[in-house]
Amino acid sequence: MAVSLPESYTRLPYQDILVSHVPESSPTPTLIILVTLNRPAARNAFTDRMAHELSTLFPLLSLDPRVKCIVLTGSGSRSFCAGADLSVSPFNYGSDTPQTHRDGGGQVAIAIHRCNKPVIAAINGSAVGVGITMTLPCSIRVVSNKAKIGFVFARRGIVMEAASSYFLPRLIGYSRAVHFITTGGVYRADDPLLRELFSEVLEQERVLGRALEIAEEVAGNTSVVSTKLMRDLMWRGPSSAEATHLLDSRVLLELFNGEDKKEGIDSFLQKRKADFKGTMERNAPSVWPWWELVDTKVPERVKNVKSKL
Amino acid sequence: MAVSLPESYTRLPYQDILVSHVPESSPTPTLIILVTLNRPAARNAFTDRMAHELSTLFPLLSLDPRVKCIVLTGSGSRSFCAGADLSVSPFNYGSDTPQTHRDGGGQVAIAIHRCNKPVIAAINGSAVGVGITMTLPCSIRVVSNKAKIGFVFARRGIVMEAASSYFLPRLIGYSRAVHFITTGGVYRADDPLLRELFSEVLEQERVLGRALEIAEEVAGNTSVVSTKLMRDLMWRGPSSAEATHLLDSRVLLELFNGEDKKEGIDSFLQKRKADFKGTMERNAPSVWPWWELVDTKVPERVKNVKSKL
Amino acid sequence: MAVSLPESYTRLPYQDILVSHVPESSPTPTLIILVTLNRPAARNAFTDRMAHELSTLFPLLSLDPRVKCIVLTGSGSRSFCAGADLSVSPFNYGSDTPQTHRDGGGQVAIAIHRCNKPVIAAINGSAVGVGITMTLPCSIRVVSNKAKIGFVFARRGIVMEAASSYFLPRLIGYSRAVHFITTGGVYRADDPLLRELFSEVLEQERVLGRALEIAEEVAGNTSVVSTKLMRDLMWRGPSSAEATHLLDSRVLLELFNGEDKKEGIDSFLQKRKADFKGTMERNAPSVWPWWELVDTKVPERVKNVKSKL
Repeated sequence: MAVSLPESYTRLPYQDILVSHVPESSPTPTLIILVTLNRPAARNAFTDRMAHELSTLFPLLSLDPRVKCIVLTGSGSRSFCAGADLSVSPFNYGSDTPQTHRDGGGQVAIAIHRCNKPVIAAINGSAVGVGITMTLPCSIRVVSNKAKIGFVFARRGIVMEAASSYFLPRLIGYSRAVHFITTGGVYRADDPLLRELFSEVLEQERVLGRALEIAEEVAGNTSVVSTKLMRDLMWRGPSSAEATHLLDSRVLLELFNGEDKKEGIDSFLQKRKADFKGTMERNAPSVWPWWELVDTKVPERVKNVKSKL
Repeated sequence: MAVSLPESYTRLPYQDILVSHVPESSPTPTLIILVTLNRPAARNAFTDRMAHELSTLFPLLSLDPRVKCIVLTGSGSRSFCAGADLSVSPFNYGSDTPQTHRDGGGQVAIAIHRCNKPVIAAINGSAVGVGITMTLPCSIRVVSNKAKIGFVFARRGIVMEAASSYFLPRLIGYSRAVHFITTGGVYRADDPLLRELFSEVLEQERVLGRALEIAEEVAGNTSVVSTKLMRDLMWRGPSSAEATHLLDSRVLLELFNGEDKKEGIDSFLQKRKADFKGTMERNAPSVWPWWELVDTKVPERVKNVKSKL
Repeated sequence: MAVSLPESYTRLPYQDILVSHVPESSPTPTLIILVTLNRPAARNAFTDRMAHELSTLFPLLSLDPRVKCIVLTGSGSRSFCAGADLSVSPFNYGSDTPQTHRDGGGQVAIAIHRCNKPVIAAINGSAVGVGITMTLPCSIRVVSNKAKIGFVFARRGIVMEAASSYFLPRLIGYSRAVHFITTGGVYRADDPLLRELFSEVLEQERVLGRALEIAEEVAGNTSVVSTKLMRDLMWRGPSSAEATHLLDSRVLLELFNGEDKKEGIDSFLQKRKADFKGTMERNAPSVWPWWELVDTKVPERVKNVKSKL
């Protein structure tokens, strides 16, 4: 692996996001990383730079064995993310072609979806457009009861992005998903229609604290190999119960001899906290990945042609 | 396109349904069409004629650029639709073969599913059998709290029709869907088990008014190109997040240069109501339709053979 | 069919499960079978023997025309099933290979999934690990409000088994499913996050009684051909509404001439209880099964090689 991991994530040259360790003084191992959308004056509106920074950061966190769990939040108390920033020439895709264009929200969503570590969204305020769709691949969402949530695409004459047409109906069912995209309206986070999207709806000042509590519980008690494989079994598994039974039997057989399973059973029988050390890089079963990989990168050949033009 | 659109939908020679414009005096543009199942003496029970009329009407509404949104309701205050009318020799399929038989409820469901305009079901009273399954492809369902809802197929020795085995578990999850078809029972619309199926549960006299309010909001603020494409992205999209990201990137790139996107952003920045003029016939992106089309018509060859017999 | 059905299920030589007829004195026809996980001293923890007994029993019940509905519960008032029994050398798969290993929970889940009769889970107490995942293919789940429910796999360093990565997100949506497997926590059955998984949450002493009431209603009013075909239409149906319309039209055409449909309509019009006699062995439509069968048995060839080693 040619990627070199940073000693500290707090020193990366990011501008539209802020990265910190939890606790701040955290030495190695780092355990929890807090990622903050950081354009408070613009209600954390989404920019191409933000897309680039997030989709560069998550692959590093995915690979880093010190990182166990990630929390994603927004700066300030009003907004998590107000959607695409319309003031900085968004949608400026003049030179893009169908072969080269990659939606920025989708790049972030795919980076979170592929990340080997669970990501918890602490939706501290309103989340509209890409502001809410980028959280859909997260493992858990907690939200402020003051937040407004909007899948507003039909009111802008565009369509849902960030692969949210894949995620949204699977997360909360088509009945609610089609409702939201049809009205294009903005809803309070505690609207019963949104019930299935969020794990907890809290007072604004409790949101980040609660997300960090959950992250600590996850980081301190679960195997990242287990959670990553289970997400892949669910999102990328076979389309029948029988084929799933054959696949999970193979995965389990390999895990039974693994170090995380030994630590999991030992710690349970000894009634102590588990200390899982497994990583996907070292401990993924041989059958993984079991699905056909879809490459979302812009092909080099096409990029070269494009840059010559 | 060889189809000629009627000047007014109120003069079509329908018998088991009633079609009106909202508001009634509506000149061109028509905006909202109200479709009423109109056999009140028979609790709006479903007939072959009703199936034919509905599955003829929706393709016209789909194509008509004046129509922005459709509301589907039942006449009277007691029933939306009591199911298949058992008194007019339903199931009279003596001459049908596996090649020629097409379930009438399914023809209506597919017509609604394919319709380019959002359809809102105003379920003003009880909906049983095909009475409820025909509403599953609608974008939004509001219901009377006095309505009884029944997926009663197992008590009649038949199976769920109208492609509802496709729609129901995707709309509300398999846990609830399997429950309902297993008991075959009739449930009050406000039963918690039905929670995910309906967007709002209201006093009977409020149901149609509320559905029309939502229709006005949808017709007045959203792009039909957007809502149609988003339904297709969700119902007919790829089976991975990555492939969805590649697809929605292509769709978005084309829409960014479209007139509805310009109007959507302009109206948003100018804080005024949008006036979307796009239609799927003129403005669908070149990548649409991206799925393999399944033809549900009876093949002419088979029809001819059949009519000779 | 070479299988011979037992006269009474109460005399089968089972050790870790108990099988009884409801009512106990039930002559032929038997109607309802109660299956009890029966290791109360070990909180009904799951053993290889239990897996073998359950996955042998369900195919018999599936075939037996006397059986209309099955209830699955646990003995005692504290636990439905505490998960895999860690004290009897579980995970002892030394001689298994990827070709021969079949997860025991999955064998039970597949047996329930394939069973021609609806299975109702009466979750009388806590259900953890395989204790809850084995109930996911059941048609209906009722649960004690004192039960603790845990998808604890990430805390043991393993992954979800029993094909639950297939069932869980489809039953309750990915938002909740990913939440549960990420925390690995144990939740009260009445936690709102679990809302969609259970049809009813009851006082512990009411759980079995209520499940039997539902079973009586199902056994006394529904066609097993109908419920089996509808489960197969939903779980194993085509991936588009159009293809589902073509399939259900074929199924319905064949059922319209069937005895259960005649009895269903006659009993409805005569306002009497239906007496359905159809079975899948005699009355399945010719188009069934319409999906590609996946064989989960260990191939004989591999078994022979293995036993020689």
